[in-house]
Amino acid sequence: METPDASPAYQKLLTLGRELQLAGDVSALLGWDQEVLLTGKGVAYRGEQMAWLSGWIHEQFVDPEVGEWIEAAAEEASGDIEQSNVRHWHRNWTHATCLSKQLVKDLTETRVLAQAAWAEARKKADFSIFAPLLTKSIELTREKAERWGYEEVLYDALVDEFERGATTKKLTATLGSLRTELVPVVAEACGRESFDQSRITSGHYPVSAQEAFNREVAEAIGFDFEAGRIDTAVHPFCSGMGPGDTRLTTRYNEHDFRSSFFGVLHEAGHGLYEQGLRAEHRGQPVGEAASLGVHESQSRLWENHVGRSRAFWERWWPRAVHYFPHLKSLTLEEWMRSINDASLSHIRVEADEVTYDLHILLRFELEKAIFSGELAIQDIPAVWNERFESYFGLPVPSDDLGCLQDIHWSMGIFGYFPTYSLGNINAAHLMRAVCGQDSEVAREMDGGNYGGLLSWLRRSVHQVGSQIPPEEVIARAAGSPASSAAMIAHLRARYLG
Amino acid sequence: METPDASPAYQKLLTLGRELQLAGDVSALLGWDQEVLLTGKGVAYRGEQMAWLSGWIHEQFVDPEVGEWIEAAAEEASGDIEQSNVRHWHRNWTHATCLSKQLVKDLTETRVLAQAAWAEARKKADFSIFAPLLTKSIELTREKAERWGYEEVLYDALVDEFERGATTKKLTATLGSLRTELVPVVAEACGRESFDQSRITSGHYPVSAQEAFNREVAEAIGFDFEAGRIDTAVHPFCSGMGPGDTRLTTRYNEHDFRSSFFGVLHEAGHGLYEQGLRAEHRGQPVGEAASLGVHESQSRLWENHVGRSRAFWERWWPRAVHYFPHLKSLTLEEWMRSINDASLSHIRVEADEVTYDLHILLRFELEKAIFSGELAIQDIPAVWNERFESYFGLPVPSDDLGCLQDIHWSMGIFGYFPTYSLGNINAAHLMRAVCGQDSEVAREMDGGNYGGLLSWLRRSVHQVGSQIPPEEVIARAAGSPASSAAMIAHLRARYLG
Repeated sequence: METPDASPAYQKLLTLGRELQLAGDVSALLGWDQEVLLTGKGVAYRGEQMAWLSGWIHEQFVDPEVGEWIEAAAEEASGDIEQSNVRHWHRNWTHATCLSKQLVKDLTETRVLAQAAWAEARKKADFSIFAPLLTKSIELTREKAERWGYEEVLYDALVDEFERGATTKKLTATLGSLRTELVPVVAEACGRESFDQSRITSGHYPVSAQEAFNREVAEAIGFDFEAGRIDTAVHPFCSGMGPGDTRLTTRYNEHDFRSSFFGVLHEAGHGLYEQGLRAEHRGQPVGEAASLGVHESQSRLWENHVGRSRAFWERWWPRAVHYFPHLKSLTLEEWMRSINDASLSHIRVEADEVTYDLHILLRFELEKAIFSGELAIQDIPAVWNERFESYFGLPVPSDDLGCLQDIHWSMGIFGYFPTYSLGNINAAHLMRAVCGQDSEVAREMDGGNYGGLLSWLRRSVHQVGSQIPPEEVIARAAGSPASSAAMIAHLRARYLG
Repeated sequence: METPDASPAYQKLLTLGRELQLAGDVSALLGWDQEVLLTGKGVAYRGEQMAWLSGWIHEQFVDPEVGEWIEAAAEEASGDIEQSNVRHWHRNWTHATCLSKQLVKDLTETRVLAQAAWAEARKKADFSIFAPLLTKSIELTREKAERWGYEEVLYDALVDEFERGATTKKLTATLGSLRTELVPVVAEACGRESFDQSRITSGHYPVSAQEAFNREVAEAIGFDFEAGRIDTAVHPFCSGMGPGDTRLTTRYNEHDFRSSFFGVLHEAGHGLYEQGLRAEHRGQPVGEAASLGVHESQSRLWENHVGRSRAFWERWWPRAVHYFPHLKSLTLEEWMRSINDASLSHIRVEADEVTYDLHILLRFELEKAIFSGELAIQDIPAVWNERFESYFGLPVPSDDLGCLQDIHWSMGIFGYFPTYSLGNINAAHLMRAVCGQDSEVAREMDGGNYGGLLSWLRRSVHQVGSQIPPEEVIARAAGSPASSAAMIAHLRARYLG
């Protein structure tokens, strides 16, 4: 916070930013507590608390005086950090202030109604229940995007909100080439004999043993338990709620410990990023994670590239057998096949590493078509099912296994899906850069030491925060712009090798 | 919140009060989380969050405009509730605004330093380390009390802060007569043969069994687990952080489950009070607990009057033996003796029901003498030790077992101790009123049904909140003003019967 040479306006923004961050992190704790601990009768009051807090934060920030500070600070900003902060503030302030109160209110109300309608529609596998509110939500989102502005097409404004600098054109190119290369890999990998998973799921894996194993591994990859925790929640997530306080959640299945194990590795990847952000930048835009696509690269990197690798399990297989004696009936080779088993299926969140991005591509294409006006709402189920069958070779028996499976649209979240694929692409690209030929980091990891990898990520990604755009974060870290090449090579080696 | 006929000023106060309550309850969660979950590296940032929040709450409330609203509302207040709210607001606002910023700052700073000095002094059993900051703290407290004002003696202002309406004179009378009657009871009860506690502490009581037993009993007495939780913390406490969210903490000793068991009963007593406050009054002064002395009556009632009674254990002894098979070696009679064993000892927080209030009397007398100027700071250890020996018949070997044992003075808390004894007196007085001759409630409890007792407390105490002064709450509930008679009768019956 000490920037003695900065302009008075910049100093005021730093002070305000810190205060709003304190409040925002309080709100994160309220949300975390609601997911993890809060009992049923406390929910209504918690809602009132959270609405009060977010309303207060919004009100402080949209004050016209803040706009004047930003303008004044822009004129005098010197140095990369200051300039980057001012650019972020300017954009955030403009985005927050250009929406009318009525629009914000309509968006909030529609979200509540749409979520309820979606839940019912999914339950009954009946798209018509969801369609009217989805239509309304899309209309409002369109209005929001118009106000925010965009360069070429309206969908640009939506993806840019989650991934600064991303455009429809760039994403179409990136994901399009991913698709082209992915299709033959999927065909071959899914054509192989699948592993008999009942050999694992016939065992019993007590929660306490899962907790102990998860913790041991999370600690080994560098998650700092003096600065965070793992708790149980229905929905697994990671919440970085301040320097020294990053919390992961997971859920336990006593017939398949892999769900909590890889879940914790995934969330710990997010958590390592949060723990690696510069504490002294907390409350400044540059101190935040670069984007969703970068965040997801960190979770995928630890979950898939590290956690499903042969080298990793040469180190950890004996510990797994120690915690779960049922595994004695498997060889390490069989175990490796069990965790790297590709198959075509309907549900995105259950998909494996090979087929996952086909699910994303489908959603990306549909979202583009919706916002360009080419796809009418009532046609979504038919188009979804037709395209799904052409990608996956499977018919969609009902819409709960199709276009009603994801919560995102019901929450008014459009343009988010592509960041999952960017995360996968970025993860592979980063791993190739740091673990390429003759890599000391890779040798260390073969010995079960992940410190070299983490240090490199800290330096190249985590501590950079949002000082530069997300694409640039990856490009500078890896030495070249991300492309799907590394990811395809990784999948070929792992699944077809 | 719906009071359509109230004045605009009153409406504004309701709105502000609700908002400050939301914020205050957020602060309660931050504090609870820090005690129960927060990891070490998150503490500094949490401190910053809590300071921000309490500063914000204070700032909103001390606004001169709020004073004007209170004045306007006072002129038009109609009905008991409105008038009571306005009286509370007036007092709270006056108390908050009459202290200079410098004084508040000095009090805060001295508290931090004094706590550190006290901790060191206690560790080294050296009062001289604590004396300078205790002197400073007492000086500042004196200044605070002068600004708040009082009727007869300065100490009145201090006790009134924790127990509205209490005065030095009244407390001297109440606690003086308690002492007179208590002395022979103590002598006789402590003269009896003591129980060999190693027959219990030689067992092993797993935490999971303690948790299950505690929960079963807390549920049976009416604690609503849909509106609260029990967690583990170093310091046992109860925090009511909103309608539907009351949290208890306890700590476990695997060699003596009674510490967590009676701890949970005690905190559940506080918790039942919090759960019984009127949700629709949350954010209004009338919706708050009446006082510390009333709060403590609820915890003591469930812990001692219910939880250490013969009738209670006739119901629960088989369950205790079920959870803790080690207890099979004891008869119910022996168990009853083990939990109602009086003895003279140095430490207040470890004292039994019979001797506890002698500890309080000692502190009350010393505090009075300090603030009347009769007792100089440097003489505290000598006077403490002399008086302790005359009350307890035991010499004080070192000050960590004497005047350095409690944290209160180091936190600048003076005038709080007497509320513990008021709690004991009130608890016995309430129990005599509701469980007197031919009481349906008492008969139900003999059968293990505590619903009648709880309903009566809800109606007579909990839902009354702070609508009337604490003394009156007890008097109206019991049908007569509290006195030590019921408590002495209770102790005689239990310990000398």
